[in-house]
Amino acid sequence: MRRIGFVLKVKRDKIAEYKQHHQKVWPEMLAALRRCGWHNYSLFMRPDGTLFGYFETPMSLQQAVADMAKEEINAQWQKFMTPYFEALEASQPDEGMQELEEVFHLD
Amino acid sequence: MRRIGFVLKVKRDKIAEYKQHHQKVWPEMLAALRRCGWHNYSLFMRPDGTLFGYFETPMSLQQAVADMAKEEINAQWQKFMTPYFEALEASQPDEGMQELEEVFHLD
Repeated sequence: MRRIGFVLKVKRDKIAEYKQHHQKVWPEMLAALRRCGWHNYSLFMRPDGTLFGYFETPMSLQQAVADMAKEEINAQWQKFMTPYFEALEASQPDEGMQELEEVFHLD
Repeated sequence: MRRIGFVLKVKRDKIAEYKQHHQKVWPEMLAALRRCGWHNYSLFMRPDGTLFGYFETPMSLQQAVADMAKEEINAQWQKFMTPYFEALEASQPDEGMQELEEVFHLD
């Protein structure tokens, strides 16, 4: 398993709504994530909207995102989530995840 | 196990050195972390020096930090690391970790 860390930025005035939606992520979306190898996946929020993601996968972030891109439900979720994020360098959030460098690990 | 996310900020001109030191963290420090319940502990770095920490513990961040504070080696490590961090609201990095809110989890 590889450990992946990434960052995204939620708009300040959308934080509360973003959090609500993430308490009830569509079951079909959760099933797709599982199927595509997103394990032990957590999202952490800083009060300014900075969102840190952590998950474990047998592949890379790129491959895990690419596999999700083949899932119909993902296109709908990404479209739903796009307005919640600050200016992305990509057209939807999953393509704009900034991967972080792992600089330390202790099992 | 609880999942903990936290953030700290490394000075830009100290990033390379910080990373080097974290490739060879003192074995006594690693042993103390294990003893104090810091499991599956990773540190991820954004290019601007933002440091995202993730670990799993049976307790809270406060308790995990408090237990480490009783370890002699931790005082030495924190003193060693203090100059690498941007202005902390505390006197040493372990006391200045900003805990993040977990807003989503998938096992």
